[in-house]
Amino acid sequence: KKNYRIAVLPGDGIGPEIMQEAVKVLTLVGEKTGVTFTCEEARIGGIAIDTDGTPLPEETLKLAKESDAVLLGAVGGPKWDQNPGHLRPETGLLGIRKGLGLFANIRPANMHSSLVDASTLKPEVVSGVDLIVVRELTGGIYFGEKKRYDGPNGEVAEDQCIYNEQEIERIIRVSFDIARKRQKRVVSVDKANVLESSRLWRKVAERVAADYPDVELTHQLVDSCAMQLVRDPKQFDVIVTENMFGDILSDQAAMLTGSIGMLSSASLAAGSFGLFEPVHGSAPDIAGKGIANPLATILSVAMMLRLSLEMDEAADAVEKAVWAVLEAGHRTGDIAADRSKAIGTLEMGQLVRDEL
Amino acid sequence: KKNYRIAVLPGDGIGPEIMQEAVKVLTLVGEKTGVTFTCEEARIGGIAIDTDGTPLPEETLKLAKESDAVLLGAVGGPKWDQNPGHLRPETGLLGIRKGLGLFANIRPANMHSSLVDASTLKPEVVSGVDLIVVRELTGGIYFGEKKRYDGPNGEVAEDQCIYNEQEIERIIRVSFDIARKRQKRVVSVDKANVLESSRLWRKVAERVAADYPDVELTHQLVDSCAMQLVRDPKQFDVIVTENMFGDILSDQAAMLTGSIGMLSSASLAAGSFGLFEPVHGSAPDIAGKGIANPLATILSVAMMLRLSLEMDEAADAVEKAVWAVLEAGHRTGDIAADRSKAIGTLEMGQLVRDEL
Ligand SMILES: CC(C)[C@H](C(=O)O)[C@@H](O)C(=O)O
Ligand SMILES: CC(C)[C@H](C(=O)O)[C@@H](O)C(=O)O
Repeated sequence: KKNYRIAVLPGDGIGPEIMQEAVKVLTLVGEKTGVTFTCEEARIGGIAIDTDGTPLPEETLKLAKESDAVLLGAVGGPKWDQNPGHLRPETGLLGIRKGLGLFANIRPANMHSSLVDASTLKPEVVSGVDLIVVRELTGGIYFGEKKRYDGPNGEVAEDQCIYNEQEIERIIRVSFDIARKRQKRVVSVDKANVLESSRLWRKVAERVAADYPDVELTHQLVDSCAMQLVRDPKQFDVIVTENMFGDILSDQAAMLTGSIGMLSSASLAAGSFGLFEPVHGSAPDIAGKGIANPLATILSVAMMLRLSLEMDEAADAVEKAVWAVLEAGHRTGDIAADRSKAIGTLEMGQLVRDEL
Repeated sequence: KKNYRIAVLPGDGIGPEIMQEAVKVLTLVGEKTGVTFTCEEARIGGIAIDTDGTPLPEETLKLAKESDAVLLGAVGGPKWDQNPGHLRPETGLLGIRKGLGLFANIRPANMHSSLVDASTLKPEVVSGVDLIVVRELTGGIYFGEKKRYDGPNGEVAEDQCIYNEQEIERIIRVSFDIARKRQKRVVSVDKANVLESSRLWRKVAERVAADYPDVELTHQLVDSCAMQLVRDPKQFDVIVTENMFGDILSDQAAMLTGSIGMLSSASLAAGSFGLFEPVHGSAPDIAGKGIANPLATILSVAMMLRLSLEMDEAADAVEKAVWAVLEAGHRTGDIAADRSKAIGTLEMGQLVRDEL
């Protein structure tokens, strides 16, 4: 295929600035490979609340569904923090995940060797960390029934955490498929000593593992995994876990590297369709200043090329360009040892394209 | 009062070894203060499963209820890992928490300056860390209704996370009372952008805060807190959170110090009654070898003296004795830089008593 439609959702805060650089990189990839990328923009998050009165306008979801892949910047900001639930930027995010069936969130936590010092952990503990958290993204306590009512001891609030076998099986399979191309080790994280959903999770993981005799499956309790990530993050290859645990552990794992301005993530549906975004947030405090790090968004483009568009070579080229720029010593403020030498968003984007 | 009844539950693995040293310290405290401690042993966990056919025999719960405080070693081991739920050691732990109404789990994560090197984090990041995680211990998803049934997509499992205002209010109050005696800063951790129970949590936290104008309350989302604990653990004074999040974050926080063989915890009921235990587990791999570190259990005795028995001076004395022994360079294997110089459980206990 020589023509792809890409839905581009810049979102809020630094979203538009970093997305601009990412789209420029994608355009250059198109020129060099002869592939046409038709990038169509739409609103999500706070900007959509302000303009359309909802964090996820119908036309945004429609555009995304008609596209081959989605690029997302970031959503949210203090302006909308006090809004009621249905008018909050995150609700747009949860809505698009569910609406597009993006059940598999792939969050690599790795680091370029030149950034080891950015970590709060000792170099010998983090250098060489290369793990992927595979998080279930459309089930569990995020999407279970919610209740609020009055009881004898004041108001009562309930959240239901619910999983069925099929939901668990498909995410476990994603993790095994990924592990196969890596070190072939999956750690399934649950709280099977307490939760019924975790006991079902573990049972399904065991069953699926039988189809992957070449991949090693072990189980870790979530509290223990949170400890092990601090004690020895290098022990992990692929971690697979449910939605809520994945939210916590993937953020913890990201921060171990000390440079979340560099990390990107993919959220995949069945088939090759996916949404790609940086791990960091909308950073409202530095929005509009031209100093945000565009590399995580540019690396999201690489993930998209590889995972949704079968353009592995182009993906490699983008990643290599990013590493080359880092090796040459260029840094945005968030990853700079010496902030006075930090470069801006546009300059960093240009350097990556020059390298490409 | 000059006579206290203490329920002593050594449990499994290294439990009996470390408990022995703790009880010797308590006895010595009694001799020096003229207070009589009547220590009565009972079974819990795996040993109770083997002997009584249940992880929490009625007589153990009865003894605990009739006591002024409970000292617990540790429960669990591979022998019972494949047992069905009601015959698992952890079930005894959950049962005694609920049975005694121990709703407030107090987990300090701090470290003696001489142990800074044990951490996987850089010394400048961890030295001086002194935080307390206050975890709600008898509610939430741990004790909500559980279901398992067949559906169109295979088996379905459900866990209900439920909180009422009263349950939230009392644990928030505990955290504010603790913060008052410290740096007066409470971070309440929830996932209010997704969970109904977290929205109620946050509302109650705000309401209770009005009664403590001298204490600062801020809110952090659980994923963000997991990041901040890695990025800058010194920012925290008191963290208060619900049961499941507290399980994860308190273990993560403990591991930041690098020496969980040194950390103890309290689980308190309304009033002064409490259960005190080391944070580490039953370590079946080193059980019976006489090399386990008894200091966390000895420090649990100090916590008990302070929090349940109003013996602050004696508590201080025990803690000082422990620090003095560490300063003199004595180490068990788990915290030794040079393992060949490590001392055993009995020797460590004796050194603390000599110091006392
Ligand atoms: C914004 C929030 C709803 C979201 C989540 O919890 O999934 C975010 O933390 C993430 O990890 O993408
Ligand atoms: C053993 C387990 C049920 C328990 C818990 O999750 O509460 C443990 O992890 C703890 O933190 O004391």
